[in-house]
Amino acid sequence: MKSFKISEAVIRRLPIYLRFLNDLSQSGIQTVSSQDLGEKLDLNPAQIRKDLAYFGEFGRKGVGYNVDYLIEKIRHILKLDKPMNVALVGTGNLGRALCNYNMYLKDNMKIVAVFDADESKSGTLINHLTVQPMRELTSVVKELDISVGIITVPAPEAQNVADQFITAGVRGILNFAPVVLKAHSGVRIHHVDFTAELLSLAYYMDHIQEKSEGVFE
Amino acid sequence: MKSFKISEAVIRRLPIYLRFLNDLSQSGIQTVSSQDLGEKLDLNPAQIRKDLAYFGEFGRKGVGYNVDYLIEKIRHILKLDKPMNVALVGTGNLGRALCNYNMYLKDNMKIVAVFDADESKSGTLINHLTVQPMRELTSVVKELDISVGIITVPAPEAQNVADQFITAGVRGILNFAPVVLKAHSGVRIHHVDFTAELLSLAYYMDHIQEKSEGVFE
Repeated sequence: MKSFKISEAVIRRLPIYLRFLNDLSQSGIQTVSSQDLGEKLDLNPAQIRKDLAYFGEFGRKGVGYNVDYLIEKIRHILKLDKPMNVALVGTGNLGRALCNYNMYLKDNMKIVAVFDADESKSGTLINHLTVQPMRELTSVVKELDISVGIITVPAPEAQNVADQFITAGVRGILNFAPVVLKAHSGVRIHHVDFTAELLSLAYYMDHIQEKSEGVFE
Repeated sequence: MKSFKISEAVIRRLPIYLRFLNDLSQSGIQTVSSQDLGEKLDLNPAQIRKDLAYFGEFGRKGVGYNVDYLIEKIRHILKLDKPMNVALVGTGNLGRALCNYNMYLKDNMKIVAVFDADESKSGTLINHLTVQPMRELTSVVKELDISVGIITVPAPEAQNVADQFITAGVRGILNFAPVVLKAHSGVRIHHVDFTAELLSLAYYMDHIQEKSEGVFE
């Protein structure tokens, strides 16, 4: 039934490696050992070697990994060698936080358009992005070749926004509204659920001796 | 090496089941089939039956699950039958969003205290919570028996806040700052990383035919 090669846990660790490797590269550091990576990222070095081995043999014993080569490989795996434009709907506190977070989104992935159903917000600026009315969504998504939609609206409005994104042609949705969304096949929906994050944290606090398969340890 | 009984993916689905079951219960619905659950939550019914079977035999063929019994069981597994108090540090947009989100945190888990390093914010209200100065953190954590800390401060300040939480005695930290935190053993740290969420979404958009092991499908 499962046909994928790389587990979601590994895919979710790659951006974390990438961020740290970018920092190293900017500091002029050219090689890094799995030991160093493990210490800085609080991960098991053996796990890191295993993760990176998925993508071919990068490291050399006693020398470590070439930082820029590793960056290039991970960027390629994550499809960051081509630009990916993102739109966001909902400019409440969370939407604003994500727009301000935009500066962390290097690597060709950027929020390039922001929408809000409340037209009194149209024309206001959030971190250099101009809030636009919802009726512009379809044309802007097409015009700017936006492939990802972020939803930060209240739960009752989320499905309607998702439908508009899908009709406009996005291929992926990151949903922060506390509701399960239906998509058409061919569109990938991920859900960031703060309650679920807190509850799973609570579970593991009481099972601290059980090493989880978690992404972030 | 792995000694845990229940996978993280299952643990992360339980709050999603719970939210929906609570809705059913409030609507007076007393039984639900895995088919119904699957349709509403966009999950495979076989997966749901497998998840719930971890916790013993709940369902009866042709009848389905007793909603209130299932709620009670899941709440017990997630340790929601006892109250869990949460503190948050950092009242920027994200911190404010999470405080406003507090109303979704039923089930004994609540943000009960909010702190900010900027003392000019002390005394202001966010969704009925009074912002307090950082120097009050240790005493408030002890006084209110707070076991979970949420960090929504800029990356350079996050480790310092984590250290203060840990010294004060929290057992779990949910970190939203884009930085890897070091903890002492015995403290569980989960990291919510928006970049990682977006990048893994992007990866799966281009591998849409590969069913992931993902939590939210």
